[in-house]
Amino acid sequence: MEPINIALLGAGRIGQVHAANLSGRVAGARLYAIADVSGEAAQRCAQQYGVAIAVDDYQRLLADPQVHAIALCTSTDTHARIITEAAQAGKHIFCEKPIAQTLESIDLALTAVEAAGVTLQIGFNRRFDANFRRARAAVVNGEIGRLERIHIISRDPAPPPISYVRVSGGLFLDMTIHDFDMIRFLAGDEVEELFVMADALVDPAIGAAGDVDTAVIMLRFKSGAIGTIENSRRAVYGYDQRVELFGSGGALRTENQYPNSALISDAQGVRRDLPYYFFLERYGESFAEEVRAFVMAIQQGTPVPVTGWDGRVPVVMALAAARSLRERRPVRLDEIHSSGG
Amino acid sequence: MEPINIALLGAGRIGQVHAANLSGRVAGARLYAIADVSGEAAQRCAQQYGVAIAVDDYQRLLADPQVHAIALCTSTDTHARIITEAAQAGKHIFCEKPIAQTLESIDLALTAVEAAGVTLQIGFNRRFDANFRRARAAVVNGEIGRLERIHIISRDPAPPPISYVRVSGGLFLDMTIHDFDMIRFLAGDEVEELFVMADALVDPAIGAAGDVDTAVIMLRFKSGAIGTIENSRRAVYGYDQRVELFGSGGALRTENQYPNSALISDAQGVRRDLPYYFFLERYGESFAEEVRAFVMAIQQGTPVPVTGWDGRVPVVMALAAARSLRERRPVRLDEIHSSGG
Amino acid sequence: MEPINIALLGAGRIGQVHAANLSGRVAGARLYAIADVSGEAAQRCAQQYGVAIAVDDYQRLLADPQVHAIALCTSTDTHARIITEAAQAGKHIFCEKPIAQTLESIDLALTAVEAAGVTLQIGFNRRFDANFRRARAAVVNGEIGRLERIHIISRDPAPPPISYVRVSGGLFLDMTIHDFDMIRFLAGDEVEELFVMADALVDPAIGAAGDVDTAVIMLRFKSGAIGTIENSRRAVYGYDQRVELFGSGGALRTENQYPNSALISDAQGVRRDLPYYFFLERYGESFAEEVRAFVMAIQQGTPVPVTGWDGRVPVVMALAAARSLRERRPVRLDEIHSSGG
Amino acid sequence: MEPINIALLGAGRIGQVHAANLSGRVAGARLYAIADVSGEAAQRCAQQYGVAIAVDDYQRLLADPQVHAIALCTSTDTHARIITEAAQAGKHIFCEKPIAQTLESIDLALTAVEAAGVTLQIGFNRRFDANFRRARAAVVNGEIGRLERIHIISRDPAPPPISYVRVSGGLFLDMTIHDFDMIRFLAGDEVEELFVMADALVDPAIGAAGDVDTAVIMLRFKSGAIGTIENSRRAVYGYDQRVELFGSGGALRTENQYPNSALISDAQGVRRDLPYYFFLERYGESFAEEVRAFVMAIQQGTPVPVTGWDGRVPVVMALAAARSLRERRPVRLDEIHSSGG
Repeated sequence: MEPINIALLGAGRIGQVHAANLSGRVAGARLYAIADVSGEAAQRCAQQYGVAIAVDDYQRLLADPQVHAIALCTSTDTHARIITEAAQAGKHIFCEKPIAQTLESIDLALTAVEAAGVTLQIGFNRRFDANFRRARAAVVNGEIGRLERIHIISRDPAPPPISYVRVSGGLFLDMTIHDFDMIRFLAGDEVEELFVMADALVDPAIGAAGDVDTAVIMLRFKSGAIGTIENSRRAVYGYDQRVELFGSGGALRTENQYPNSALISDAQGVRRDLPYYFFLERYGESFAEEVRAFVMAIQQGTPVPVTGWDGRVPVVMALAAARSLRERRPVRLDEIHSSGG
Repeated sequence: MEPINIALLGAGRIGQVHAANLSGRVAGARLYAIADVSGEAAQRCAQQYGVAIAVDDYQRLLADPQVHAIALCTSTDTHARIITEAAQAGKHIFCEKPIAQTLESIDLALTAVEAAGVTLQIGFNRRFDANFRRARAAVVNGEIGRLERIHIISRDPAPPPISYVRVSGGLFLDMTIHDFDMIRFLAGDEVEELFVMADALVDPAIGAAGDVDTAVIMLRFKSGAIGTIENSRRAVYGYDQRVELFGSGGALRTENQYPNSALISDAQGVRRDLPYYFFLERYGESFAEEVRAFVMAIQQGTPVPVTGWDGRVPVVMALAAARSLRERRPVRLDEIHSSGG
Repeated sequence: MEPINIALLGAGRIGQVHAANLSGRVAGARLYAIADVSGEAAQRCAQQYGVAIAVDDYQRLLADPQVHAIALCTSTDTHARIITEAAQAGKHIFCEKPIAQTLESIDLALTAVEAAGVTLQIGFNRRFDANFRRARAAVVNGEIGRLERIHIISRDPAPPPISYVRVSGGLFLDMTIHDFDMIRFLAGDEVEELFVMADALVDPAIGAAGDVDTAVIMLRFKSGAIGTIENSRRAVYGYDQRVELFGSGGALRTENQYPNSALISDAQGVRRDLPYYFFLERYGESFAEEVRAFVMAIQQGTPVPVTGWDGRVPVVMALAAARSLRERRPVRLDEIHSSGG
Repeated sequence: MEPINIALLGAGRIGQVHAANLSGRVAGARLYAIADVSGEAAQRCAQQYGVAIAVDDYQRLLADPQVHAIALCTSTDTHARIITEAAQAGKHIFCEKPIAQTLESIDLALTAVEAAGVTLQIGFNRRFDANFRRARAAVVNGEIGRLERIHIISRDPAPPPISYVRVSGGLFLDMTIHDFDMIRFLAGDEVEELFVMADALVDPAIGAAGDVDTAVIMLRFKSGAIGTIENSRRAVYGYDQRVELFGSGGALRTENQYPNSALISDAQGVRRDLPYYFFLERYGESFAEEVRAFVMAIQQGTPVPVTGWDGRVPVVMALAAARSLRERRPVRLDEIHSSGG
């Protein structure tokens, strides 16, 4: 089977992760061209991975009939527009999360995708992590019975710069959004209502910027199961990414990932090295896996594992979380409409 | 130093735990007499532990000048009254939790204790468990910095009979009350507000009896730290009693206790035996430790580690939790007054 | 059933452990009298545990018809003689390990026991530890198939004083003897041959005293299974007592015991507190369990779990180990005869 | 810097591992050509990795001035000869272990390498595993003080076919050789003497073929430290690859590697999935790392991390082990000369 030609749009940090994976680690796919608003960045990335085409105007790639699909890694505010254009050009689309920060933009994009009949996959890479896959498999296989509780621990090692915090859309859209996706994925169920307690405990400057850095979200699924998500922008010991599931037949939990398993006992105590510091180390393999699934969906017509709808719901949840925090009350997801968060 | 003569009031399950500990495992204390409404039960227990005095009327023991202190293990609805009587008789009091199910009763009892100047300790034994002591020490010593999060997992192996559920006062007063105490103990701080999601997911009959069997309580401390408690009346793998603390300088978590540490790898997987099944096995040592502390408080004048106030606040929290569940909104603790839960 | 009256002979460190257990923790037994060459030590111990009879001449206790059994905790060189006398006096005997340091003495004692028909149990307490019991159960139940390998890790926290080393009989008779018993217990099989590498790596003074402080013993069972034992007189992190078993159907290993399970993650690493420091903390419960089994053997005629033969074989193994080290060659156990180590 | 052109000699199982790594995972290296006695196998492999040159006669590649280095993955009996030829042709050599099964062959090859001044690295990939690197670092950094003990557990999941066993050179040369290298690597020291107990406990057919499938090797380093290696050809739970180190300042141990960290508690017990099944999964990353180090050694003149001498010593140890087993006695390494095993 001929490999799929993929054009990378956006050669920033996450774009480079995809570039590296598309260069040899994803069977059936070829990194065909790179676009970046900085033509120089596109050139550099193209050179590093032996890609012939590098441009500063992504529209040229949408117009290229050799391009079968795009990997959309530009800034979030451009996603919805480019999805629409790419769909109209008949390209399949792998889009980094989130699709957009407003439901209006998301819905316009999803409508265009639907009309064009192209394949769209959203980049919720954590679903492809071996630990969380195993957790989901346990639910599906009934290893822990009927699900009653999910608890997600999700902490970054250190807060981003305040300049980033200001444009991030807030903790819920920027960070929790991964956990909103994860909790739906693990449960295989939809959330009805949520309630939030949150604060700027890590850095008052984050509070001054109108955001929070510490949050606990409690939520109820249609099934009656209760979920909790806890976030912090700072964990001094590194990236803390764990889940606990509990059901009528048992419980499951996952641990952080470590660079080695050496356990040292000395006169002070028993210790091991810190877990992986951040997402590139921790989730490296999942970024390759999600693109493999995208390529397979295109080539073999298998279902897309993370649909446009899967990209939309976590935004609804983030908007509900923001409202719960603002109004200090539980908020139902059906209170959130396109006409306003 | 002469040993303290302790009279046991109530020779039921928990009374027998104290009887066993008072017979040889608590230096400085002597099990002097036993009272139970069933004189036969008092006799049997007295015989087993070589105690000379066994009565069916506890008032006789309150009148006995040889009795220095009582261990109050009768049914909850009698606690407040007997505390008052014992205080007026000048006896020191170790009282099983909870003091009572209404604040009015509690406040009458605490007033009597205060007036009499006797020592009162409440039986929140889990504070004396080695794991939770270590967790508290880490907070006090600053090992995890400024506390930002506490998560308590507290699940019983199997629900009690429905007949018990009906008179238990409800999950929050019967089961969560231990966790309300624990979260205050670990934080060394008071709770301002809490919010509950709960349901009868384990057994619909519990729901039909007007109670819940699965609950998650989120709460905010004065310091701004956020706590969560999760309860279930049923964990098929046994008693699940763990905490996770997170702060500016690190995190701490504790594990369940196991009868052995043997890890077996076979063709199916890597496995170990189940944790201890329930509280007698899991918390056995803590029941002795709390009484040792009580005896030391009397003999040496050291502060009582679990005061009457420590017995009152968890009842306030339980009443607030019940209201949050009923009214589906966050409830502040200062909304809870003696005049009604 | 009337409790068995047990006379404690020897009120030193291990004698006091048994005194404490016999005072309330062993159903069916009563600590009836105490003898110690230091009458004062006997008195002190008797007072602490409320025992009426305290003497400096143990023979008076052997002559007392109220004494049903003795717990023999005197110095090793007196064991064989007192066993003989006690057997002739018709007393059941619980004897601390080792019976003696020469096979001649052991055989004389065992002959006297056999002739008298009394019950003799040797104090290899580790067999009663929950971890090692579980390991043995796994072998018996076939959980790991046919046994092929046993590896025992046995390290003390710190070497004893040189004065003790000089009279200890050497590492193999003093320390490894427990592991020789354990490996027979776990395997349920006898050893045919062993080979030793050992040295004074911890403290040259131990070498100067003619002993070693670090040893590895490799041995072959009749079944063909291969065992290894590793000893050190010093582990800076505390008492290291673990086993690993491997068979045709799987493997099993046990961990050290810890005072708590708290796991702390901070900026330096992930750590926990040290394991228990030494045998009183680590094996406390096993000392009570072995005496319970002894009492049950007497009262109910159940088999003694650690027989006189079980006391003899480890001495043979220790003598073989010493010879292997001396002659730098594998030594068969049937080379070791009463006429010389 | 221009990439190094590497010719792969031998396109069997291990050859394909290197082919995959040399295609994109080793910066500075290019898979330039492939030779295999089966020209068809060479073609297939070349096609898979987009390599232009595929031949059945490796001599053509040695004659090609574009070839800078070879990766020698042919059958063991051809290694020594091809090393000699490659060295004479001025090619750098990465050679799979072992160099040869006799010291004569090894010494001829090493002499040729020395004379030619080319770079030779032996494929003891496990040194590049993150766990064992960390263990070695702990020794070097003094984290466990002066080393006194090393214990290596090394078990394959299942025995190879008897046809392979017959030509393998025996367990010590085929399997233990990795552990002989590892124990030298971890200790940073040379072995003086060793003693073996071994048997065919897994499969009598292996015994009938003149080999063993279960072995324990005890050895003494020049420093006085004592090592043990345990091998089995069958572990039903998968690849068992662990080390324990013990020293004056502490201890270190490593665990097996697992595909996920999910821990499941159900009514039967607490369990996790099996560790990785065999070396391709377990040591995948180390195969890339060793070649990266080889390329760096050539390009930057850094020392080769696994020298020809490092390839020779484990063969001496294997020959000593075979003699110890045959003669049932400890054997000094200096008893082993080129003139005979």
